Amino acid sequence: MAVEGKITKQAEDFPAWYQDVVREGDLAEVAKIVKGCMVIKPHGYAIWERIQAGLDKRFKETGHKNAYFPLLIPMSFIKKEAEHVEGFAPEIAIVTHAGGKDLPENEQYCIRPTSETIIGHFFAKWINSYRDLPLLINQWANVMRWEMHTRMFLRTTEFLWQEGHTAHATHEDAVNEVEKMLDVYAEFAKNVMAMPVIKGRKTESERFAGAVDTLCIEAMMRDGKALQAGTSHDLGQNFGKAFDVKFQTEAGAEEYVWQTSWGVSTRLVGALIMTHSDDTGLILPPKMAPIQVVIVPIARKESEKELVIPVVDKLAADLKSKGLTVEVDDREGKRPGEKYYEWERKGVPVRIEIGPRDIASGEAMIKLRVSDGKQKIAIDSLAEQLPGILDEFQTFLYERALKFREDNTVSVDTFDEFEAVFKDGGSKFVWCHYDGTKETEAAIKDKTKATIRCIPLDGQGPAKEEGKCILTGKPSKQRVLIAKAY
Amino acid sequence: MAVEGKITKQAEDFPAWYQDVVREGDLAEVAKIVKGCMVIKPHGYAIWERIQAGLDKRFKETGHKNAYFPLLIPMSFIKKEAEHVEGFAPEIAIVTHAGGKDLPENEQYCIRPTSETIIGHFFAKWINSYRDLPLLINQWANVMRWEMHTRMFLRTTEFLWQEGHTAHATHEDAVNEVEKMLDVYAEFAKNVMAMPVIKGRKTESERFAGAVDTLCIEAMMRDGKALQAGTSHDLGQNFGKAFDVKFQTEAGAEEYVWQTSWGVSTRLVGALIMTHSDDTGLILPPKMAPIQVVIVPIARKESEKELVIPVVDKLAADLKSKGLTVEVDDREGKRPGEKYYEWERKGVPVRIEIGPRDIASGEAMIKLRVSDGKQKIAIDSLAEQLPGILDEFQTFLYERALKFREDNTVSVDTFDEFEAVFKDGGSKFVWCHYDGTKETEAAIKDKTKATIRCIPLDGQGPAKEEGKCILTGKPSKQRVLIAKAY
Repeated sequence: MAVEGKITKQAEDFPAWYQDVVREGDLAEVAKIVKGCMVIKPHGYAIWERIQAGLDKRFKETGHKNAYFPLLIPMSFIKKEAEHVEGFAPEIAIVTHAGGKDLPENEQYCIRPTSETIIGHFFAKWINSYRDLPLLINQWANVMRWEMHTRMFLRTTEFLWQEGHTAHATHEDAVNEVEKMLDVYAEFAKNVMAMPVIKGRKTESERFAGAVDTLCIEAMMRDGKALQAGTSHDLGQNFGKAFDVKFQTEAGAEEYVWQTSWGVSTRLVGALIMTHSDDTGLILPPKMAPIQVVIVPIARKESEKELVIPVVDKLAADLKSKGLTVEVDDREGKRPGEKYYEWERKGVPVRIEIGPRDIASGEAMIKLRVSDGKQKIAIDSLAEQLPGILDEFQTFLYERALKFREDNTVSVDTFDEFEAVFKDGGSKFVWCHYDGTKETEAAIKDKTKATIRCIPLDGQGPAKEEGKCILTGKPSKQRVLIAKAY
Repeated sequence: MAVEGKITKQAEDFPAWYQDVVREGDLAEVAKIVKGCMVIKPHGYAIWERIQAGLDKRFKETGHKNAYFPLLIPMSFIKKEAEHVEGFAPEIAIVTHAGGKDLPENEQYCIRPTSETIIGHFFAKWINSYRDLPLLINQWANVMRWEMHTRMFLRTTEFLWQEGHTAHATHEDAVNEVEKMLDVYAEFAKNVMAMPVIKGRKTESERFAGAVDTLCIEAMMRDGKALQAGTSHDLGQNFGKAFDVKFQTEAGAEEYVWQTSWGVSTRLVGALIMTHSDDTGLILPPKMAPIQVVIVPIARKESEKELVIPVVDKLAADLKSKGLTVEVDDREGKRPGEKYYEWERKGVPVRIEIGPRDIASGEAMIKLRVSDGKQKIAIDSLAEQLPGILDEFQTFLYERALKFREDNTVSVDTFDEFEAVFKDGGSKFVWCHYDGTKETEAAIKDKTKATIRCIPLDGQGPAKEEGKCILTGKPSKQRVLIAKAY
């Protein structure tokens, strides 16, 4: 049972721990009055803004432009691509009444669950010749998929995301785009979120509805489960044909375009939380932290304040001039210990404590969000040293997450060993052989609740080698990644 | 009739001119297949991104934090504030089916037309004590109001906006917030959009549904009509009472909070277009322009290209290092004249032409989007000079818009004069006396289609003086601003 102020231990009840961290970090809350929705509170939204800014910059650097398409999609559009409608129909919300009257059935709309269909419609209008290609569009938007089992950030009826949509003259160009954007996601996850990921390909049954190929990045959460952190789809000519998106080739022939789509969502905030945080609460890598440094002045008497506040204000200004985001917590009526507690729960990477004695000695106490102890650093050198300390902390978190993943990754060759990993609610990243059939994939899931997360791309996971399926003993060309998943 | 490639003259048919400028500037297009919606194309969206960035910075500097609330609002919420439901009920879109089944009537949702109600619900959960106040929240979101008569950017069924929502301990604090955010809008309009505005107060009949007071900024478009460019509402305790948002005062009493809301939308893009553009197409102030400088290399032969391209590339790099956004248009298969034409229609403030002769003379031809001629400037000094030239151009556009407004503003004391201003589809900004009654306001609108745009705030419009209503002759305390409006 959730108790305000308390964080359940990770080892005790991971889902409860996650909820507690989200609540105590003041990141979000379940909306309740709107089925499966949540409110993203300022501290949580500020993390999403950092994800947006980092990715948006990368999308623009790779030649993409942002645009905005309607929220509502005519029901007839959703039905045009056969696999697409099959995948999304059960999850859509439908508008049947608007402007004071009921809409006839052929004028009803669904709220976008994703925008391939409506964007396909406009691509058909905008693309005439090979000169119009590639067309590289991205959209930041809200989407809606009616979910029965929801969890904050990870699975909510409405979520925020970006969806890239591109059209190309050749399949090769489209495949290059799909791989390029997967690399953008993986690089961002690693270098900004400090989150190691495995790049791979989904099996046919896990593919996006309407795609011919889906690539993904998979991250390990601190309970050993996998979280799909981003996907990049090769749509082939499926939507091109459904929406009649044709172009004239340089040779004068008429062809359907080759399309891609790729997206990440607010679920990345959940991934960030479950990659780094601990039993004290949220831990944020400095590049993701809305507040990187909090300074707590230790001063009760007026005379102490007169001494301490000017030093603190100057330090804050100096740190800001180095590009750091700084909060001075000079709130009255709260003891330093209460403040420390609150900022730890909000995941602030570095805390600085400055009182009269520190000023006398010229050194301030600094404390990293994850470390065994405090250290003293000369106040005068803090502005010089902190950017480096934050960089080291960023690297430390990445290395720690990587080590955690390695420690919880196994190669397994028998089904007995395999089942043992997943029993009693456990999960690890398991590299093993399977025979490539849907039947075996379903049987594995059925027996263990673990799923094939991906077939690794070259250079990901263990060295490529042939082997035998753990379940059927049939031949396999390479090991795949299996885990329980969010 | 709209013809691809052609821009109707402003003087001939202003609405057609507007549509042509939007189309030829590649800013947006009517979605058609989604009633009253539009697609914001990359060049139009990039302008919106600049509006977002400029305002978001200002909101944060004034202590506001972004958050995100659900798109769907329970129907019961909309009905809680009596005037609010009366204002918005006719315009809402309702979701009655989701997740594969029909929703019972008490579980139906509307797509937010604005978020006072749902945010009020959460404020009630978040606010307990005076220590929680002020609570200063902003949301960037899409909203939906089912409109019958739509026009791109100005009035669309779905639009993008920001909505600030704040709660305060006293009415005085709320009023200060309402005025502060109006000032933020006015400053942004002036200094970034180069758009002069009049700050004023709406009459009771033009107030936001549920507000006790609505302040606004009104801008003049190039047809003499007014466009409401932003509003800031004093909600009193109306939503506080409807959603039971109470707090304990410092003295220990229990009181309802005082709330405000304020917003601007993608309609600002329309305002920008109609403030500056001309018969050649879009004109953008440099601070709003996604591309501030375009460089067109003039080189056909390979030998010319070898000479020109390195100079152009170096210049582009130098300009970028000064913080300017630069596009080099080295497309093959298009003549320089075609390129000039295209960039003029896209509103790029400065064009630089560089060919072999320019390199020989050391001077390049530069052309401002609005000016009588071209001027030659030493290529070596362009990086130094262009930021200043762009600043001057920004100021020039503001001054020109201000002069246009002054030239089209009149003070009028008789109803004959008044009617003459608005006959034959005309409009100006008219300062005149009216008796302050709803009946007179309605009669004026009925007779002339002009509406009371605002009662000016102190220091706005002509000096305050008493007078007699132009229609009834009854006493009036001050002149108000009347115009036809978008």
